[in-house]
Amino acid sequence: MNLPQQLLAAAALTAGLMTSSPAQTLTRIEPENWWVGMQEPTVQLLVQGERIAELQPQLQHAGVSLQRVTRGDSPNYLFLDLKLDAQARPGTVELRFEREGKTVLTHGYPLLARAPGSAQRQGFGPRDAIYLIVPDRFAKGGTAGDTAQGLREGPNRSAPGGRHGGDLAGMRQHLNYVAAMGFTQIWPTPLTENDAASYSYHGYASTDFYKIDPRLGSREDYLALAREAGAKGIGLIQDIVLNHIGANHWWMRDPPTRDWVNRWPGYTETNHARTTLQDPYASTSDRRRFADGWFSPNMPDLNQRQPLLANYLIQMSIWWVETAGLSGLRTDTYSYSDRDFLARWSQRLLKEYPQLNMVGEEWSPHPAIVSYWQRGKRNHDGYVSNMPGLMDFPLHGALLAALSESDGHDSGFTKLYEALAHDFVYPDPARLVLFPGNHDTPRIYSLLHQDLALYKMAMAYIATTRRIPQFFYGDEVLLQSPRQRDDGAVRGDFPGGWQGDAVNAFTGAGLSPAQREAQDFMRRLLNWRRQSRAVHEGALMQFAPEQGLYVFFRYLPGDAAKVMVVLNKNSTDTPLDTRRFSEMLSPSSVGTDVLTGARHELGQMLRVPARAALVLEVR
Amino acid sequence: MNLPQQLLAAAALTAGLMTSSPAQTLTRIEPENWWVGMQEPTVQLLVQGERIAELQPQLQHAGVSLQRVTRGDSPNYLFLDLKLDAQARPGTVELRFEREGKTVLTHGYPLLARAPGSAQRQGFGPRDAIYLIVPDRFAKGGTAGDTAQGLREGPNRSAPGGRHGGDLAGMRQHLNYVAAMGFTQIWPTPLTENDAASYSYHGYASTDFYKIDPRLGSREDYLALAREAGAKGIGLIQDIVLNHIGANHWWMRDPPTRDWVNRWPGYTETNHARTTLQDPYASTSDRRRFADGWFSPNMPDLNQRQPLLANYLIQMSIWWVETAGLSGLRTDTYSYSDRDFLARWSQRLLKEYPQLNMVGEEWSPHPAIVSYWQRGKRNHDGYVSNMPGLMDFPLHGALLAALSESDGHDSGFTKLYEALAHDFVYPDPARLVLFPGNHDTPRIYSLLHQDLALYKMAMAYIATTRRIPQFFYGDEVLLQSPRQRDDGAVRGDFPGGWQGDAVNAFTGAGLSPAQREAQDFMRRLLNWRRQSRAVHEGALMQFAPEQGLYVFFRYLPGDAAKVMVVLNKNSTDTPLDTRRFSEMLSPSSVGTDVLTGARHELGQMLRVPARAALVLEVR
Repeated sequence: MNLPQQLLAAAALTAGLMTSSPAQTLTRIEPENWWVGMQEPTVQLLVQGERIAELQPQLQHAGVSLQRVTRGDSPNYLFLDLKLDAQARPGTVELRFEREGKTVLTHGYPLLARAPGSAQRQGFGPRDAIYLIVPDRFAKGGTAGDTAQGLREGPNRSAPGGRHGGDLAGMRQHLNYVAAMGFTQIWPTPLTENDAASYSYHGYASTDFYKIDPRLGSREDYLALAREAGAKGIGLIQDIVLNHIGANHWWMRDPPTRDWVNRWPGYTETNHARTTLQDPYASTSDRRRFADGWFSPNMPDLNQRQPLLANYLIQMSIWWVETAGLSGLRTDTYSYSDRDFLARWSQRLLKEYPQLNMVGEEWSPHPAIVSYWQRGKRNHDGYVSNMPGLMDFPLHGALLAALSESDGHDSGFTKLYEALAHDFVYPDPARLVLFPGNHDTPRIYSLLHQDLALYKMAMAYIATTRRIPQFFYGDEVLLQSPRQRDDGAVRGDFPGGWQGDAVNAFTGAGLSPAQREAQDFMRRLLNWRRQSRAVHEGALMQFAPEQGLYVFFRYLPGDAAKVMVVLNKNSTDTPLDTRRFSEMLSPSSVGTDVLTGARHELGQMLRVPARAALVLEVR
Repeated sequence: MNLPQQLLAAAALTAGLMTSSPAQTLTRIEPENWWVGMQEPTVQLLVQGERIAELQPQLQHAGVSLQRVTRGDSPNYLFLDLKLDAQARPGTVELRFEREGKTVLTHGYPLLARAPGSAQRQGFGPRDAIYLIVPDRFAKGGTAGDTAQGLREGPNRSAPGGRHGGDLAGMRQHLNYVAAMGFTQIWPTPLTENDAASYSYHGYASTDFYKIDPRLGSREDYLALAREAGAKGIGLIQDIVLNHIGANHWWMRDPPTRDWVNRWPGYTETNHARTTLQDPYASTSDRRRFADGWFSPNMPDLNQRQPLLANYLIQMSIWWVETAGLSGLRTDTYSYSDRDFLARWSQRLLKEYPQLNMVGEEWSPHPAIVSYWQRGKRNHDGYVSNMPGLMDFPLHGALLAALSESDGHDSGFTKLYEALAHDFVYPDPARLVLFPGNHDTPRIYSLLHQDLALYKMAMAYIATTRRIPQFFYGDEVLLQSPRQRDDGAVRGDFPGGWQGDAVNAFTGAGLSPAQREAQDFMRRLLNWRRQSRAVHEGALMQFAPEQGLYVFFRYLPGDAAKVMVVLNKNSTDTPLDTRRFSEMLSPSSVGTDVLTGARHELGQMLRVPARAALVLEVR
């Protein structure tokens, strides 16, 4: 049983828990509890136990009825649809399992009261700055990772792909750092159990969707992280994988149905051909292989067309939002799942939490492909998505090109300018999440050839454009990696996260001058951003790049206060005729540098320092 | 007067031509004639003469009425709106110009009968292969270019940007070559007078929209080219510039209105920021500068918001279609003109010629931008375009990348595969024109580093994908250029176009083995293409590139005959498991190479030669 101890205890008070004949036991009920007062009145329980399908479930409880019982292909599962009507109250529902009219098993199923305001929680949004953390690589605060904890892989900090021992305790201990830097949301890569023999630290091959990996800590540690972060004004975004599981997921030993995962005659990997979903010319075989092919031999591909599995994934997602008080979800390998399922999944989450935010990973450089998935898009094929947000890979790529290439009609700043112009293809571009890098991309500082000026331009752009900004742990102190993909190196240990680290980025001890400068830049930038309504809610006006300069404004219509951003790639100070910006500036406009406090007259001419990223509050 | 002699003679028969007091003459009437039986019953005549605006025009003619007289800012113009009703017959309309009730000038204005089937002409389309020619650089067939012909620039074949002397006579003399190669349409770059002191050969700075440049030949030469080409089954596409004129256009000496061209306080060049038209964040100033800025100091920017000018441009376009029997128009710098005008321009042309084709140049790498301009697109901003076709710069760029880069998740063949997948953003992708290069891009053979195998892949792709293919004169014999833009070098003289040329591509004399191979490849490919219904009308199915191989099919639903195209970038022969294509092939399918006649069993495995472009007719 994976029921947490406090729930077991509560259930035991009111029900004879797992009273059963020796031959029959319940080994699992998921979700382990549910809540009264949800918008959707039914919950479907996966009940696992040896030969449980032979039994007949029953319940009698005010306001709760057993609407349907479904059996899979395996004899060891029952799926119970419980309907909670308006009379349902928090408490324990006694589930009875009978054989030939005799009760052979009972289970007290907890129905909880929801936290006040749970349904109306405000998800993360453009006011926020997200901090993406790979927990195994951030900070080691306890002893959870010191052993394998009964799982297959133990610690090995010296291996780039090994478990380095970072944990939930480490994240909790450094929340003050996170808050002081100006981040307002944490997105940890997945924390649920990943019981693979090797290369398990990344978390994207879950072997139990409801269990926090014990090498990272306990579920209570996770809930404490959520509480403590919330107390500091930091929201928590959970990373959810709907597309695949780890090969050692308990389902794989005894799948509830034969079609639980997508099966092929021989091992068949996804072709990653994501455009097959939009392409009028795609072959059916390519389309199928994209969605149903496996992500890797160690990652069986879930078949979300199986309705019992679909329900499971939807309820699992809701369960974590409700249990951990999440402000949002990040959905891994978004488009690889069945697209009709994805529409139902997000529709259901928004039915329960209309203001929740979810952001999907669609790793495409093409706005037309990414925008296909955003809620409100009128698609050529009639597909209706309900996903509020997507990761903005197209703008990410354009930003890197802008800072890496010299400017031309189709290169450099023009790419960034034209990529942002593509916002007309998105129903809600402000809900896209823009990032300098993530756990799958080379480190931004390395991609920019360790050029601190370009780094600042990238960060200033991300923090001020019309997006939700997301930063990757350690980028604030210029962590580096090879310029080609190398996951183990990209997900380097955060300096100071381990006792005895020579450098401590939490305290600043041992940082190089450049690292210190970057960290200070980020801290000032993000703390200023926290209070900038123009950045949170404002419109944007951009001006065509000229002579190595790119200028845009954020503004609230009718408000004289504006934010002016000037990026200068030139290696010399560059005069900028500000009369070109008369739609945004008046002859008497004055700008205050949000990083240095320096004042600039903006009426006629601004001398932009060489290779500068100026962020000015204009009045 | 620019009226051609035969029209003048006809007019003189029925009217006292230019009988006038010594003080007043007519110097120009445009269009010089019109037709009865057009859909739109009015035609607006620009009448030029010194102080002509002081006169009062009159006409009395059965079925023709003078609906409106408009005067501009200059005293030397009158604009006469003639309305032709159902009773109007071909003949000459006497225009009288009176002062104080006395006729001081008359002009016999010809109303012609339309050629049979003119309105229903079939424009160029996917059945065609277009041959783009720079007339000054193709072939010298006469003596027209031997002198300046009273214009500012004389011949200078040794200057890359000079006039080399190619002419209409040269094009006419080589129509058999064009036809034998398999081309079915000619698109010459503009042929109208370009009277600049230098760099006039390219034709995009017209100084008289109605006059063929005498250094290329006469209008009769042009009409003869159209007739003779038509007799060989070759259509003629005229290159029209609506956005700008040459600085020596006669308008510039005495513009009809003050707002005829876009004026700025100082010289202001377009910023080429085409995305300003779609960008929700564009500044008004950038948008204005894009559309109203000048293309170069020698190319004043026309103000198509001026309704008299708009009418002029529309009628001029119709006049050429009707007079030269065109199969279509290519519109230069399409989006630089006023967009509301563009919608009216194309609407009006399609009102007169519903099956005409027009293709606009929107030089953007972004499908979302190019598709904005295609008729039928539901645009975010409500803009309704009426343009049937656009040049496919996005796919052109993807094809070059596909053949220049090694394959990866976002590179090489994947770029081509994903670019074609974007056809879902176009209302009618089969109407896009795809090309290996044009007069503004480096030569394809040079861009592909003189790699004949890659060249063949490019040409095979262009000839078989779901597009209207356009080729650039000389690419069939591997003309070369620098790999950076260099217009004079790109527009090299066609070998054999000049007497004494050491190499003659028309006869084959002196061609290198590679040139001969390329020319033979193109000849076979295009002549086969002429009869391939699957290529002209078929659907397309593409398969995700794998291991350096990219495969797609053209097919008519319900027809077993298909075209299979296999591009192999590998430097070794590569086995291809054809069972992957079971949606298109049966175990007994046999393919015949359209270039060599070789037969291939396609049931299980195809050995694809190294670096091959296979085009197979499958049965």
